[in-house]
Amino acid sequence: MNSTEEIDILVSEVGPRDGLQNAKGLMATPDKLKWIKAEAAAGVREIEVCSFVPPNVVKGMSDADTVVRGAREIDGLTVAALAPNFRGVENAIAAGAAKITLPVSVSESHSLANVRRTPDQMVEEVQRACALRDSLPQDRRPHIEAGLSTAFGCSFEGAVDEDAVRRLAVACVEAGCDEVGLADTAGYAHPSQVKRLFRAVAQDIGGKLGGVHLHNTLGLGLANAMAAVDAGARSLDSSLGGLGGCPFAPGASGNIVTEDLVFLLESEGMTTGIDLEKLIAVRAIVEKALPDDEIFGQVGNAGLPKGWKPAITAV
Amino acid sequence: MNSTEEIDILVSEVGPRDGLQNAKGLMATPDKLKWIKAEAAAGVREIEVCSFVPPNVVKGMSDADTVVRGAREIDGLTVAALAPNFRGVENAIAAGAAKITLPVSVSESHSLANVRRTPDQMVEEVQRACALRDSLPQDRRPHIEAGLSTAFGCSFEGAVDEDAVRRLAVACVEAGCDEVGLADTAGYAHPSQVKRLFRAVAQDIGGKLGGVHLHNTLGLGLANAMAAVDAGARSLDSSLGGLGGCPFAPGASGNIVTEDLVFLLESEGMTTGIDLEKLIAVRAIVEKALPDDEIFGQVGNAGLPKGWKPAITAV
Repeated sequence: MNSTEEIDILVSEVGPRDGLQNAKGLMATPDKLKWIKAEAAAGVREIEVCSFVPPNVVKGMSDADTVVRGAREIDGLTVAALAPNFRGVENAIAAGAAKITLPVSVSESHSLANVRRTPDQMVEEVQRACALRDSLPQDRRPHIEAGLSTAFGCSFEGAVDEDAVRRLAVACVEAGCDEVGLADTAGYAHPSQVKRLFRAVAQDIGGKLGGVHLHNTLGLGLANAMAAVDAGARSLDSSLGGLGGCPFAPGASGNIVTEDLVFLLESEGMTTGIDLEKLIAVRAIVEKALPDDEIFGQVGNAGLPKGWKPAITAV
Repeated sequence: MNSTEEIDILVSEVGPRDGLQNAKGLMATPDKLKWIKAEAAAGVREIEVCSFVPPNVVKGMSDADTVVRGAREIDGLTVAALAPNFRGVENAIAAGAAKITLPVSVSESHSLANVRRTPDQMVEEVQRACALRDSLPQDRRPHIEAGLSTAFGCSFEGAVDEDAVRRLAVACVEAGCDEVGLADTAGYAHPSQVKRLFRAVAQDIGGKLGGVHLHNTLGLGLANAMAAVDAGARSLDSSLGGLGGCPFAPGASGNIVTEDLVFLLESEGMTTGIDLEKLIAVRAIVEKALPDDEIFGQVGNAGLPKGWKPAITAV
C-alpha cells in the first residue's frame, strides 16, 4: 500500500481480526469501531478489521461487513480484511475492503485444518481473487495479499521446508497477488531463521514481498521483529495488548504487542507515524470491551522510560 | 570464569538473588537449595545464589551464608553472590563464594538509592575487594565482578551518558576487578544501543568485559539479548520464570526469563549446556515455594515447538 510513505516501518494492526478471533469474549460492533477509530487517531495507518468467514466457523466475525463499512469512513486508514476463500473475497470486496489477505498455509495439515483446502487449492483461490480484482474499475481494486501461514514452522508438522515456502511465494505471485506476507502462525520462528527466509523470498519475488506476521507464543516475537527489520522488512503485523493468546497455552500472548513493537521501532530510530502515548491509551477501550480477556504488553504495564523520546518523524 | 569452556554462551542464573529480592513471597532456605540444585542438574553452570546485604535492608537474604555453603557442595557449579559493599565482600568470601559482584551504578541517583554510595565510592569498594582477594591464597581467590548498573538508562535520571559508562568500566578495571558486567537495571535498553555500548566498552577493556544483565520490563529483553550476543557477549544473566517483576509495574516481568533465553540461544544454534526440558521442570519448585508470585515465561507456558531440537553440543 501507499501508506508507508513518510514513515520507515508500517505497523499493521491485526487485533480486531487475529486478536478477537482468539479472544474469550465477544466484542460488540460499536466497541470494535471505537477501538479502530482510536488506533487510527493514534497514527496507525493500516488495520485488519475482520475476517470474512461463515459465522458458524469463527465466532465474533458476523459483523464483518458493518465493521469494514464503518472503518472506511476513517480518513487515511487502509482497511484490511482476511478472507479464507474466494467467497470471503467477494464479500470483502462488496464491503469495500482496500486490502484483502488470503491465508495460504505452507503446511498441508494446517491448511486443511484452517481453511479446509490444500495449499495448491488456496493458490487457486488467490488466482480467482486476482481475476475478480482485475475485473473491477481501477479505483475499486483491492490490494490482494497472500499470507503464507506456518512459514516458520507448524504445530502439526513441526519444521517447515524453506524451499516449500519459496515455491509457494513464487506461485502466489504468478497467481497475480500484489503482495506476499510471511506469517509465523505457530510462533516457532527464531531470529536467524527470520532473516534467512525473508532474504531468500526477497530474492525470489523482490518488491512483492510484503509484511511479516509474528506471534509471541515462545517469547521471541520482538527479537524476530528486529531480525525482520534488519533483513529489510518494512511492514509488520501486531496486535494491541497482544490480544488473542492461545486457548492451549495459558499465559502465552498472541500476536506481538503493538505498543511494545512501536516502542522497539521508535527506540531504534525508526519512524512509525504512531503516537505511543495515544496508542497506550487505546488499551482501556479493549480492556473495557473484553473484561474476561488478558491484555498483554510490557510498555502498557510498565509505562514509558523516563525522558523517552520517539524517533523524529521525517519532515 | 572457566565455565564457558565447551559451550558457546554462559547463561548465568540470577533468580535466587535478583528474583527473590523483588518477589512478594519469602523463600525458605531448603527451597532455595532445592531450586539451585535442580537448575545445576539441568546444566546451569553459574548461579548467583544470594546477596550479602544487611537483613534489615533487603528481605529474604539473611540466609546468604548458609545458601552459599550449601550451593558450594554442588559439583561443577560456580557459586556467585552479590555484595553491595566491602563488608558484603568479606562475608561472601568467608562463605566461600567463587564469584562476587559489586553493583557499581553509573547513575549517581541510583547508586545513592541502591547502595548509599556514589559511583566513585563504589569503585573504592571494588578496589578494597580486589586487595582482599589478592591477600588470599591463590586457590581461595574469588572472581570479582563490577556490575555497571543503569548502564543503559536510569529510572531516576533517564538517559545515561555512554562515555560515563566507558569511563566507569575503565576505572573498575584499574581498581583490579576481574570482569565488568553491563546491567540494564531499569529495562530501558534497545538493541542497537546494546550493540553499540557493548562494542565500545569491549574496545576499552577487551577481555575484561564480561556478562550482560538484562530486564524485560519493557518487552525488549530477548531482542536485547540477541543484540548482545551479536555484539560478542558470551555470558548473559537471566532469572527462572522471569522472577522478580517490579512492585511499581504490575505484569512487568523482572529479569529476562532463563527458559526463554535458553530457547532463543539453542534455536540459534548456540550451545548453553542446559537441558531445556529439565530446566522447564524446575519452574514447579519455584511455583510451589512462592505461591503468591507470578511466574513468567512463554516457553514454560506454551511448551516447546513440535519436533524442536537444541543446538548440538560440541564434542
